[in-house]
Amino acid sequence: MAKNIVVEQVDYSPVSRQRVELVERKGIGHPDSIADGLAESVSRALCQMYIEKFGRILHHNTDETQIVGGQSAPRFGGGVMLEPIYILLVGRATNEVNGNRLPIRHIAIKAASDYLCNHFPNLDVSTDVMLDCRIGKGSVDLTGVYETKKLLANDTSFGVGYAPMSETEKVVLESEKFINGPLKKKLKEAGEDVKVMASRNNDTINLTIACAMVDRYIDDASHYESAIAEMRERVSDHAGKFTKNEVKVDVNTADDYKNGIYYLTVTGLSMENGDDGSVGRGNRVNGLITPYRPMSMEASAGKNPVTHVGKLYNILAKIIAEEIAKEGGGDVLEARVRLLSQIGRPIYDPQTASVQLILEKNAKSAKIQKQAFRITDYWLENIGEITGKVVNGKISVF
Amino acid sequence: MAKNIVVEQVDYSPVSRQRVELVERKGIGHPDSIADGLAESVSRALCQMYIEKFGRILHHNTDETQIVGGQSAPRFGGGVMLEPIYILLVGRATNEVNGNRLPIRHIAIKAASDYLCNHFPNLDVSTDVMLDCRIGKGSVDLTGVYETKKLLANDTSFGVGYAPMSETEKVVLESEKFINGPLKKKLKEAGEDVKVMASRNNDTINLTIACAMVDRYIDDASHYESAIAEMRERVSDHAGKFTKNEVKVDVNTADDYKNGIYYLTVTGLSMENGDDGSVGRGNRVNGLITPYRPMSMEASAGKNPVTHVGKLYNILAKIIAEEIAKEGGGDVLEARVRLLSQIGRPIYDPQTASVQLILEKNAKSAKIQKQAFRITDYWLENIGEITGKVVNGKISVF
Amino acid sequence: MAKNIVVEQVDYSPVSRQRVELVERKGIGHPDSIADGLAESVSRALCQMYIEKFGRILHHNTDETQIVGGQSAPRFGGGVMLEPIYILLVGRATNEVNGNRLPIRHIAIKAASDYLCNHFPNLDVSTDVMLDCRIGKGSVDLTGVYETKKLLANDTSFGVGYAPMSETEKVVLESEKFINGPLKKKLKEAGEDVKVMASRNNDTINLTIACAMVDRYIDDASHYESAIAEMRERVSDHAGKFTKNEVKVDVNTADDYKNGIYYLTVTGLSMENGDDGSVGRGNRVNGLITPYRPMSMEASAGKNPVTHVGKLYNILAKIIAEEIAKEGGGDVLEARVRLLSQIGRPIYDPQTASVQLILEKNAKSAKIQKQAFRITDYWLENIGEITGKVVNGKISVF
Amino acid sequence: MAKNIVVEQVDYSPVSRQRVELVERKGIGHPDSIADGLAESVSRALCQMYIEKFGRILHHNTDETQIVGGQSAPRFGGGVMLEPIYILLVGRATNEVNGNRLPIRHIAIKAASDYLCNHFPNLDVSTDVMLDCRIGKGSVDLTGVYETKKLLANDTSFGVGYAPMSETEKVVLESEKFINGPLKKKLKEAGEDVKVMASRNNDTINLTIACAMVDRYIDDASHYESAIAEMRERVSDHAGKFTKNEVKVDVNTADDYKNGIYYLTVTGLSMENGDDGSVGRGNRVNGLITPYRPMSMEASAGKNPVTHVGKLYNILAKIIAEEIAKEGGGDVLEARVRLLSQIGRPIYDPQTASVQLILEKNAKSAKIQKQAFRITDYWLENIGEITGKVVNGKISVF
Repeated sequence: MAKNIVVEQVDYSPVSRQRVELVERKGIGHPDSIADGLAESVSRALCQMYIEKFGRILHHNTDETQIVGGQSAPRFGGGVMLEPIYILLVGRATNEVNGNRLPIRHIAIKAASDYLCNHFPNLDVSTDVMLDCRIGKGSVDLTGVYETKKLLANDTSFGVGYAPMSETEKVVLESEKFINGPLKKKLKEAGEDVKVMASRNNDTINLTIACAMVDRYIDDASHYESAIAEMRERVSDHAGKFTKNEVKVDVNTADDYKNGIYYLTVTGLSMENGDDGSVGRGNRVNGLITPYRPMSMEASAGKNPVTHVGKLYNILAKIIAEEIAKEGGGDVLEARVRLLSQIGRPIYDPQTASVQLILEKNAKSAKIQKQAFRITDYWLENIGEITGKVVNGKISVF
Repeated sequence: MAKNIVVEQVDYSPVSRQRVELVERKGIGHPDSIADGLAESVSRALCQMYIEKFGRILHHNTDETQIVGGQSAPRFGGGVMLEPIYILLVGRATNEVNGNRLPIRHIAIKAASDYLCNHFPNLDVSTDVMLDCRIGKGSVDLTGVYETKKLLANDTSFGVGYAPMSETEKVVLESEKFINGPLKKKLKEAGEDVKVMASRNNDTINLTIACAMVDRYIDDASHYESAIAEMRERVSDHAGKFTKNEVKVDVNTADDYKNGIYYLTVTGLSMENGDDGSVGRGNRVNGLITPYRPMSMEASAGKNPVTHVGKLYNILAKIIAEEIAKEGGGDVLEARVRLLSQIGRPIYDPQTASVQLILEKNAKSAKIQKQAFRITDYWLENIGEITGKVVNGKISVF
Repeated sequence: MAKNIVVEQVDYSPVSRQRVELVERKGIGHPDSIADGLAESVSRALCQMYIEKFGRILHHNTDETQIVGGQSAPRFGGGVMLEPIYILLVGRATNEVNGNRLPIRHIAIKAASDYLCNHFPNLDVSTDVMLDCRIGKGSVDLTGVYETKKLLANDTSFGVGYAPMSETEKVVLESEKFINGPLKKKLKEAGEDVKVMASRNNDTINLTIACAMVDRYIDDASHYESAIAEMRERVSDHAGKFTKNEVKVDVNTADDYKNGIYYLTVTGLSMENGDDGSVGRGNRVNGLITPYRPMSMEASAGKNPVTHVGKLYNILAKIIAEEIAKEGGGDVLEARVRLLSQIGRPIYDPQTASVQLILEKNAKSAKIQKQAFRITDYWLENIGEITGKVVNGKISVF
Repeated sequence: MAKNIVVEQVDYSPVSRQRVELVERKGIGHPDSIADGLAESVSRALCQMYIEKFGRILHHNTDETQIVGGQSAPRFGGGVMLEPIYILLVGRATNEVNGNRLPIRHIAIKAASDYLCNHFPNLDVSTDVMLDCRIGKGSVDLTGVYETKKLLANDTSFGVGYAPMSETEKVVLESEKFINGPLKKKLKEAGEDVKVMASRNNDTINLTIACAMVDRYIDDASHYESAIAEMRERVSDHAGKFTKNEVKVDVNTADDYKNGIYYLTVTGLSMENGDDGSVGRGNRVNGLITPYRPMSMEASAGKNPVTHVGKLYNILAKIIAEEIAKEGGGDVLEARVRLLSQIGRPIYDPQTASVQLILEKNAKSAKIQKQAFRITDYWLENIGEITGKVVNGKISVF
């Protein structure tokens, strides 16, 4: 199968060898990530229902969610919410099959409510959040494409992926996971809204972390300051595991202790006080925002994992790039994969599958290019494997 | 002064010399672009009111808008809307000064209503659209930063720009402007929802255009087919002005004439029938989506043009890159600019200002790097010039 | 047809001969009346569409509308709206017939928009109002009753009517119609939100009028005061045509000129500033609220005029009472009619049709009771006549 | 104190001696009653917060709530919700005191959520209901009256009450309380949405009960039929305690066993499937709808219990009438009380306090009139006692 696969070697410095590098990750509690998480959890719940009832996933896309920030009055020892957060679920889903109605909106509200409960322990979903839903039926012609010619691309769009991760990228990704993981057990003062920004300048990585602190666990200013100091220290230690570069960590740089300004929240989430959020404005499918890397603008979260190339191709491009990098060992400094669909064309046969390779000087270029071709071909052929992994939550998209 | 400006020459093939290139533009009638346009028009209306009343722009960010697609039943000769489109305006704005209330939400609704009326002639705003508004007051601490230490960055984020545009990029940008401009006068059958996707493979540019056609101006299938044929021909002719490559144009590839499937709409907008839209998911500030170029994830539309680096730095990076490319003449094959702010730091003094240059073989590198440094320095110093141009609509951000 | 009609003569003083009498009318611009007007205009628009397409009125009830007051800053010479009014249309309607979708929500929004434009000249609907719609499909079993056994009552509820009107009632009704009619041409300072409350104590009628004044037509305080004085005088003159009692008129009694408190509005409507409104909380079908008279709690506005007894029986009871009073000449001091349906029973055959008569001392009771019986029987038989009159707007319900 | 109290004896048959009588009660699970309950619970929660923080109740009125019915698919053994119910809380409340923000909307959502949880055991509030809130700040001038001249009437409106209850009225009231009380323990198949309608014709009371049955507790049709039969029997027995008249009971008359039509629900509430609800459209403050009795149109639920005469006067009129009837022993066949306020006038000094008495033939009229005057005067003087009882939930208003 030709499949319009184009593999080319390009000659330039990989990101890790450039002087400057910027990398960002919006943690799971960032409003944009919450929107992503809600959209994806709704899609997964619908998938499970469709599979259970019909043995296959029916048409839907719930890749829009609008979070309207609330208002709060945090204070040491525990403050109050003033206005609940408003969350509007949006999208389309097949809600009738052979005349039988399906509980689309009910499933959506339940999935969203559960997601918030499970991930944000300091949020009281029943009173801090107003969940609303305007999910409608799928548009007529997209539904047509979906139902009648299954596995045809439902849009002309592209997916982008690369590998391997640079050390800076690993540091960013792992720092957020550390704060929202092992560190949380020791430092419950840290909320879930964590944003990590890295700026590498030659051999120094400056890590700027913004972390919403939870007021009820913090008695006073000195308690706050020591919690921040502890976070800084522990994150520095942890980051050292992923890089040989020097890592300088700043936490909550907008704080101004003299003027009594602290990043304090009631729920550990900035959406409690004016921060809005939307799907697709945060991390790409590899969990990062990387302006020194190729990126797609597609919002993957919430899109159906059967025909929506905006989701599938981003995931697939990442997997292909990772496998090429892995097989190539240290010889593949950078693999960049871009897949372009055309609406109505089978999803395994993209309009263009472009692979760019940056190799070590003495790498066996022809062999690696051949491997890259084979890997790309294999995964296009087996694109269907992705669907199940998305539904089971084995593949994250933000 | 120093301002952490790092200029470096990098050695790799510019995009225009790579084998494959993908470029996309969502036209002004695409749901994501409409969301951008609404967010930006609301911000501009607020800016004008603030300036008129207080002589300066007060804190606001209206960079979230959720469009929930309606439902329609188009047909040749003119169909009907079944369900209105729902549009929710979201954001923050200073709504009280010295105890006096400001008509924030009223201005927002008016600006949004006017924007829709002015840009989408086939949409009856009073009956096809339900406008809602949940714009609230600014979050307390951001407001603090904004008001007390003016011109300090309100966030840690980055802006990205590059220049010059490749031929493929010009073709994409100009094709959409042509369809929604001069061509519209001759072919009113074409609606405003136009999406242009280009895939260049060596010397051939494949242009895939999706254009929502307006049913009331199209009598029947043969009329539709001839309109599409005319669009294809005229766009091909027009595209030739911007490239020496061969351009192949496809229009509405999901159509299936045999089975009576046409891309027909009542309003010329796909949001009439199930397509949702959000701010920041479409074009970057140069009007394009370019996975072979560095991009920022920041939604620029609707952000305040005084302190929000997510907006200012993207515009500034683009201007700097363009000026570097222009001064360098043909010697600058590609200039890439990335600006990283740190919350609380003056906006003219970024944490990092990174400039990467790809130069012609015999270019005078030192001289050009010096120019690049000077241009970057100048624009950081004069970042304030951007504000007025945004407010007056001289700078578009999507 | 027996039809369970019970006519009885009762012996007590008619309202007009009691010492005290209270009567109220909420004018067309009162938030509750606006809600009624919107609900009814939506129902009428749906009826017309159904008739046009299917030759008969299909199931619907749009008898719920929630008006959420806006905020405004009125001032002499013209103030501003601060926050738009939010209006939510609610109800059920048949939106699919034989697989074809009907533009229910589109019709609803259009009817509501038109109603506001036509009745409230100082309201800018496109910017002062946010219209929203959550009208859904009819509930399954009610739809069943409606469609399969046409003209069966869809609920167990009752309608209440009486006649003739007392002089106090006429004064109240006509005063509001005068202010919102002929007087408006001379006194455009008066807005549409007019509330008239009468308290008759023996021979004196105290008329308390609250009228939202329109700021743009009023230059200053003295202008305001003279407008109020003129209204008071003209209403007094007009009221004299409907009663021999003395009429004392107060206008805007909450005003406090010394402290600069005036009932000033931007739009002539109190909903611009915090006053909410709902269907069915204002006038009964005769246009009045009369605590000395029997009343039904049913919201008539917006209910379908084919099977919804909550609407039909209130209108019918009023018509029957009026005809009994008219035929009886001066002998019928008061006719009170109550009609009780039972769900599932034909609407022309109520569970109970109760008529109570208060007659002049020497009236021919037997003859009048017979007439009353005949009239009641006739109208139950011809209940269908009401439907058309409601659809054409010849019968008002609030 | 004169207080404009007018006591008069009127000569006509009390309701209990008329041939026909209609009485209705919407049970606590009826959509209109739920709206009342939510509005009142929000007001009470706000009162408690205001008292706790400021020692007195600040201005608010939350007397608007819009329930938009969901959709469900009930079936024997347990069905599913298809679309959640949408509930919009509306009103005004003081949300800032001396520059400090109060958590108005948060309190409202919490109170509403708690109310639903506590009263409707078969409703899963977190997934079956979408709670929204658009409660705003009080309108400027009403707030002025409220704050500056405390205990002045905030509106020109009236309250209406009567006593004693007729047997028919007692039967209706007690039947609903029985079904939603003691009977529920034995017959959990009965849901909370119970509507009781009585039509008395001479000595026969026809009781028509509609009760939403809960599907999960009902295995099949025969189970359903036997549950209905048991309800009919038990209600008949219970009703006999309150009247000497014959009572005929019908339950769920719209059922049609042959055609498989049952009044089955998932939650015991008809709002799950298309039935909307609003405040003030159901029971009056005595818990009944009585078209043979004087009634006020005022929605009492949710109004503030300090200055809103629309609430206070209805409660007060009921209390005065009850006390007059009680003191008068059997001699007072009917006491009717109407109280009319005037905006800006002290609430203890109504514009008119009208008392009408129907007495037994040989009753000592002068004495009873004197008592009535005294009781009325006492309660106007002590109107403040009502406030606390409302806040503590000792006085119900629907």
